[in-house]
Amino acid sequence: MTINVLFSASDERWANYRAPFEAAFAAAGLDVAMAREFAPDTVDYVVLAPGGGITDFSAFTRARAVMCLWAGVETMVGNPTLTQPLTRMVETGLSEGMREWVTGHVLRHHLGMDAHVRRSAPVWEQVSPKLARARPVTILGLGVLGTACGLALRGLGFPVTGWSRSPKSVEGIRCLSGPEGLEEALRGAEVVVLLVPATPETENLMNPRTLAMPARGAHLLNPGRGVLVDDAALLEALDTGQIGHATLDTFRVEPLPADHPYWHHPHVTVTPHIAAETKPEFTAEVLAENIRRGEAGEPFLHIVDRARGY
Amino acid sequence: MTINVLFSASDERWANYRAPFEAAFAAAGLDVAMAREFAPDTVDYVVLAPGGGITDFSAFTRARAVMCLWAGVETMVGNPTLTQPLTRMVETGLSEGMREWVTGHVLRHHLGMDAHVRRSAPVWEQVSPKLARARPVTILGLGVLGTACGLALRGLGFPVTGWSRSPKSVEGIRCLSGPEGLEEALRGAEVVVLLVPATPETENLMNPRTLAMPARGAHLLNPGRGVLVDDAALLEALDTGQIGHATLDTFRVEPLPADHPYWHHPHVTVTPHIAAETKPEFTAEVLAENIRRGEAGEPFLHIVDRARGY
Repeated sequence: MTINVLFSASDERWANYRAPFEAAFAAAGLDVAMAREFAPDTVDYVVLAPGGGITDFSAFTRARAVMCLWAGVETMVGNPTLTQPLTRMVETGLSEGMREWVTGHVLRHHLGMDAHVRRSAPVWEQVSPKLARARPVTILGLGVLGTACGLALRGLGFPVTGWSRSPKSVEGIRCLSGPEGLEEALRGAEVVVLLVPATPETENLMNPRTLAMPARGAHLLNPGRGVLVDDAALLEALDTGQIGHATLDTFRVEPLPADHPYWHHPHVTVTPHIAAETKPEFTAEVLAENIRRGEAGEPFLHIVDRARGY
Repeated sequence: MTINVLFSASDERWANYRAPFEAAFAAAGLDVAMAREFAPDTVDYVVLAPGGGITDFSAFTRARAVMCLWAGVETMVGNPTLTQPLTRMVETGLSEGMREWVTGHVLRHHLGMDAHVRRSAPVWEQVSPKLARARPVTILGLGVLGTACGLALRGLGFPVTGWSRSPKSVEGIRCLSGPEGLEEALRGAEVVVLLVPATPETENLMNPRTLAMPARGAHLLNPGRGVLVDDAALLEALDTGQIGHATLDTFRVEPLPADHPYWHHPHVTVTPHIAAETKPEFTAEVLAENIRRGEAGEPFLHIVDRARGY
């Protein structure tokens, strides 16, 4: 029987995703009809892309799952009409993109690249940076993305500490956990990377108290979520020099408003939420596999634990 | 019997190197007297640091080796007075520093970082870069440094091609060699990294013919040697857009003269020969091991093949 998949997305996403999705469904042997309009009670799976605007899920009485095409589902978990199983996207393109952005910006700070990129006068000043092995990096969050970044940085020689809510173990990474492990994880870090999910417990994880913990002049990278940072406290820490530079990819309000101080602060680099983007071809494979599982009565991949919020 | 080691170096190097060297000699159980002055015919080993000014080696009649503290020995191999075995420096700090500089600048170009670093107005334009797996990188030179860089880039997902004078094999890297392999190695590359030694055959390796081979808009990184690049041809290729950007760490004349066009070209980034620097503690270990070998009659490490020039 044909499986009805509602694809709730902007015109642009629909144009980019349609062909890779249809190819993945065919490759998985699934008889899928995918469209942007269905009578709600005929829908088997709801696929939500960023920009898709469903807020009330109660009419989807037959839907076996609601599947998000992004990794952070904090705006979905509290929706009382969303009673179907909810999945989030974990795909290799997202991990690879994040690994590249984080590794690149850690190396940018490590090597002091900005001085060379911005130099406008001929100044030959031979100061070699120290080696990565002497630059401790701490990653808050050891999920799929944090672990991928941590392993890449470890491979380049950086001493990496990872911190997570519950205890984890990753070879080559010093793993700490829980509220009691946070200070030890941050203490002495010269680069701090935020990759924890946004939950009520992680809101303002970086605040006046925790921003004081890393080494003086440390660099902060936030490719995670805007709410992880107390913005006023970060601006204050930048002004005192406690934080040397912040490179931010995510913000409480996006697009970041034109009058936000981050845009003009000399020690802030803004990237417009591009660190990692779901890639249609990889996403399509994961989604087809999840629909295959749903049809076969097997457990879904990447199902959201609503109690934890991710 | 005490081994006399002449350390020919600037005051600054002497200050930095003396303690780590003496510690390494002691750890290796070697009875060494190291100084900056000896009667030439009493010297057992000549250690040359950058800035050490010996040009005539004929008076060092007893010296069992001349040991350079840097990797590129092109200014030494043709010296007719230098008849002693000549070694060059291969140490982990140099490879690690090079790996960090190359990986960092490849990622900088890959991620289009400069636009974010230089942005002065609030512009939110969400263009994610493609993944590293779709960005071919070619490294000319597969010695210790080129191989270290190639493996790091491979680990981050970049498809890496390595080219060397004689055939080599490195797992995960497409290896090509010889003059006949050069065009295939460069064809389609989006980033080209120069890490071949400077020899008569590699002078102007990047010239009008070879600069036309990579993908249009490719980025060129030269942490190798200034003479590898035909400067006029590179400036021309930058002006036509065939080469999108060049990040150069080495130059024919150093310091790079203040009036050189590289300083002011919008598509050139100059770093002042800092990509990789010999680190005293690692260097000291390698040097102590080489002196131990010399005293035990074992073959030296990293001996220069004068016919090849490196």
